[in-house]
Amino acid sequence: MKIGILGYGNLGRGVEFTVKENPDAELVAVFTRRNPADVKINTPNVPVVRANDAENWIDKIDVMILCGGSATDLPKQTPEFAKMFNVVDSFDTHAKIPEHFANVDAAAKKSNHVAIISVGWDPGLFSLARAYSSAILPDGKDYTFWGKGVSQGHSDAIRRIKGVKNAKQYTIPIDAALEAVRSGKNPELTTRQKHLRECFVVLEENADAAKVEREIKTMPNYFADYDTIVNFISEEELQKNHSGLAHGGFVIRSGNTGENKKHNHIFEFSLKLDSNPEFTTSVLLAYARAAHRLQREGKSGCMTVLDVPPAYLSAKDGAELRAHLL
Amino acid sequence: MKIGILGYGNLGRGVEFTVKENPDAELVAVFTRRNPADVKINTPNVPVVRANDAENWIDKIDVMILCGGSATDLPKQTPEFAKMFNVVDSFDTHAKIPEHFANVDAAAKKSNHVAIISVGWDPGLFSLARAYSSAILPDGKDYTFWGKGVSQGHSDAIRRIKGVKNAKQYTIPIDAALEAVRSGKNPELTTRQKHLRECFVVLEENADAAKVEREIKTMPNYFADYDTIVNFISEEELQKNHSGLAHGGFVIRSGNTGENKKHNHIFEFSLKLDSNPEFTTSVLLAYARAAHRLQREGKSGCMTVLDVPPAYLSAKDGAELRAHLL
Repeated sequence: MKIGILGYGNLGRGVEFTVKENPDAELVAVFTRRNPADVKINTPNVPVVRANDAENWIDKIDVMILCGGSATDLPKQTPEFAKMFNVVDSFDTHAKIPEHFANVDAAAKKSNHVAIISVGWDPGLFSLARAYSSAILPDGKDYTFWGKGVSQGHSDAIRRIKGVKNAKQYTIPIDAALEAVRSGKNPELTTRQKHLRECFVVLEENADAAKVEREIKTMPNYFADYDTIVNFISEEELQKNHSGLAHGGFVIRSGNTGENKKHNHIFEFSLKLDSNPEFTTSVLLAYARAAHRLQREGKSGCMTVLDVPPAYLSAKDGAELRAHLL
Repeated sequence: MKIGILGYGNLGRGVEFTVKENPDAELVAVFTRRNPADVKINTPNVPVVRANDAENWIDKIDVMILCGGSATDLPKQTPEFAKMFNVVDSFDTHAKIPEHFANVDAAAKKSNHVAIISVGWDPGLFSLARAYSSAILPDGKDYTFWGKGVSQGHSDAIRRIKGVKNAKQYTIPIDAALEAVRSGKNPELTTRQKHLRECFVVLEENADAAKVEREIKTMPNYFADYDTIVNFISEEELQKNHSGLAHGGFVIRSGNTGENKKHNHIFEFSLKLDSNPEFTTSVLLAYARAAHRLQREGKSGCMTVLDVPPAYLSAKDGAELRAHLL
């Protein structure tokens, strides 16, 4: 399948690596809103093209992987590009998924393309874990934990505080909460009991450390409901020790069955990722394969991971999967 | 959906409980090869019927859940019942799945029914974990661990030894192996390194314990390649402490991505089940729902969990799933 990339940041670079790991995929072009001459990619002999010229590539690309952000890029780009291509995106603003789905569905149906949105690990694989487990264990309770990993939103919130030069914030699941869930007791857990927030903060010269720490710890929505640890470090230390893109998390459903609901079952899915963007693009590429197949079968419109048969993600055919993997 | 059960053992009883947990399901009849008068079920006002009379129930049942064994029951029953009903089974002889699939597919296609085979947790949910993770991380390695739980086959093998009155064998995954896999080092693990076998054995009067222990530990295929612990206990102790049906296991894929494959990702799925048969029937019921929907959409033939879109397992519709679970 011939792959196009729209947007060349962390995700776009991740798709580039992922294509090399999948022999059935070939990178055809990278599309950018920047000046193409300013975008240096890692794959030789693949052109970088203006995003506005995408319509000239309609017959040359099977699936366009959209690597923009959920805040402003994807709400516009996904419906627009679904008019021309099969597309996959990693739209992750949970509350706006229904609206995004409707917009993309209208565009993709009209042009007979398949669009798969909200692909990644949450939403994405974590959604699958929640869907399978809740369908199988209707009498139960779901728990999702994130981390250990950097939260971009919380890091940004700290950087907006006066006196802060730079900051990284780690979301850390609390072991005692995970163990309580795994025990099958279906505990009611407060926000504070589930996750810890640890911040690494670089101060501006002459900033008031105590004041910054107080402002972080009392910030509504972001930190006030959590136990928060604040560490002040140098810019060098931040660059050296806190530039990683590791992330992960856990989805656990604890459910009961049988006479007097006496039997408990723990369904647990977890990810531990060295590189959040590279894993996300690995998921995107598998769903690009599915989008391409579904369109060849005559399907069109918007889908999510919940609508795609698992076998469609694989380069292997049904008989091979049944014989060796089932 | 109107559910029929064929075969009333541990699985059949499990389906009966599962139906009660799912408001969209109703148990219509239990079919048996025994004398119906000898089969006492837990649900009032549901008839127990001779398996041979099933054809009289064709219009009254949406999905027949087949609760027989894989050795001799299902290879005959699933194709036979797929001529009359949508069916789901838990056929678990991995090596014979392609042959079973072909037989069931021919029968189901001819009669315009949907049959979903090999539904449960392995094959079943563990197959899904292997399929998703290997499609997403093509450069990686899969590990499946089972237990802690009773292996029926190994318990039977011990019971066939002269001097043994009764026995239960637990398969136990070895923590050090799990940790080695989770470390991302992709270790090559021998059979002995992955699982331990612990046996609880009741001897006949005057049996030679040392001889029995030696026969167990040296039994080819079953025990010779493992570290095996043999405990001799009384029949009372066996009944009291080793009658449970708990089971579980782990599927872990460790894969690498990026420049020089420097980033490792751990994808882990695990189950910890108080009752193996009740969890299996919970999976069967969710796929019964899918079979019913797929047939109403005009599909027919044999499928496995790999072919079924996750959303089809849920009683909730697509919009609700997208809004609350994605």
